[in-house]
Amino acid sequence: MSGQLIIVSAPSGAGKTTMLKRVIGTVARLSFSVSHTTRQPRPGEIEGRDYYFTDDSRFQQMIAEHGFIEWARVHENYYGTALAPLRDALAENLDVLLDIDVQGAAIVRGQSALPVYSIFIMAPTPEELERRLRGRRTEDEKGLRGRIRQAREEMAQAGTYDYLIVNEDLDRSVDTLCAIIVAERAKQRRSPDGEPIRWHEPH
Amino acid sequence: MSGQLIIVSAPSGAGKTTMLKRVIGTVARLSFSVSHTTRQPRPGEIEGRDYYFTDDSRFQQMIAEHGFIEWARVHENYYGTALAPLRDALAENLDVLLDIDVQGAAIVRGQSALPVYSIFIMAPTPEELERRLRGRRTEDEKGLRGRIRQAREEMAQAGTYDYLIVNEDLDRSVDTLCAIIVAERAKQRRSPDGEPIRWHEPH
Repeated sequence: MSGQLIIVSAPSGAGKTTMLKRVIGTVARLSFSVSHTTRQPRPGEIEGRDYYFTDDSRFQQMIAEHGFIEWARVHENYYGTALAPLRDALAENLDVLLDIDVQGAAIVRGQSALPVYSIFIMAPTPEELERRLRGRRTEDEKGLRGRIRQAREEMAQAGTYDYLIVNEDLDRSVDTLCAIIVAERAKQRRSPDGEPIRWHEPH
Repeated sequence: MSGQLIIVSAPSGAGKTTMLKRVIGTVARLSFSVSHTTRQPRPGEIEGRDYYFTDDSRFQQMIAEHGFIEWARVHENYYGTALAPLRDALAENLDVLLDIDVQGAAIVRGQSALPVYSIFIMAPTPEELERRLRGRRTEDEKGLRGRIRQAREEMAQAGTYDYLIVNEDLDRSVDTLCAIIVAERAKQRRSPDGEPIRWHEPH
C-alpha cells in the first residue's frame, strides 16, 4: 500500500490556504509538501515549515540532479518541489498535499510514475473573487487587476483537474476536501488486466 | 447537473444493510432504489418501502417493455430494478443507491447511458465473515456453508468495483461511504475533448 500525491491548485482569493490548514488538522495520515525556494525568508517564516530556503547554486545543482518533481522561476526567484521527501512520505503510506499552480500541476501529472490526483478550488463567482482580493488590502489597484486577470487565466485550466470545489461556504468546502481524501483511499487502483483483489490485502 | 447511480454490493455478513441505513440518514440529496419483486411480502414488509410487490404477468410485461435496468430470477421469484424512477431521481439531482448483487452490478455498469459508480463492501477476514453469519442464527449448517461459499465467489468480483470498503469498524466504514458520495459530487466528469468548465456552471 502507498500514499498518493494530492495536487491542490486555486487562483488567489479562492480560500485555499485556510482550507488546507483545516484539512491537515482533520485528516489522519496526511502531510504537506514544503517547497524549496531561493527567495529570502520573510519575517515570521520558518525554515522547513514555510519553505526550505536555499541559494541559487544549490538550487541549480538539484535541478541538474533531477531532484525536483517540478520547479519554476518566478520573477527573480526559483521555487521547486523536491522529489525525495515525496517518495519517502508515499512509502510511509502518507498522502502528500502539493500546493502548486496550474503549470506545476500539469508537470506533476505528466510524471505518471507517482500516484496522483488533483483538486481545483475556486471562488463561486468573479464578483466574490474580486471582493475577497480587495478585502486583503495588500495591493494597489494595478496589482489587484493583475491578480484578477491571472485568476481568470488559471480558471480556464480547472477542467483538467479530477475534482472541483466551488468554495462558497468554508465549512462545507473543507468537508468536501476531507471527503475526497478519504474516498480516494477507498478507491481501487486498476491494474491493466483488472486482477481480482486478495482478501487479506485489499488495496 | 444530474445525480448518479451508486451501486453497492456486498456478500452476506459484510454489514451492508446497517451501513446503508446510516448513510441514507446522513447524506443529503440521496435516495434509495426500491426493487420490484414477484415474491410474497413477508410480515412487516411495506409496499414501496421494502419492495414493489407485483405479479408474474406484470413483471413479464415490464421486461418486454424494457422497463428494468436489471432483473434476475432467484429460485421461483423475479427481482428487478425499474428504470423510470431512476431516471426521475437523477433528473432531480438526487444520487440513487442501488443495493444489488455482483451480477446485477455488471449489467447496470454495462449500460453506459447512465452515470454510475460502484462500491464493494466486505468483511475484514473470512473468519470474521463466518462469525457474523453464525451470529445471525437464522440458518442451519448447510445453509451457512452455502452462504459462505457464495460470499467467497462474490469476493472474487470485488476488483471490478470502483471503491472497496473493508468493514472492520462500522462508524469508520459509514464515514468512508459518506465520503465517497460527497467526493463523487465534486468529481469532474470528463468530456472527451476535456473542454474547460464555465465559471457559473461548474459540473
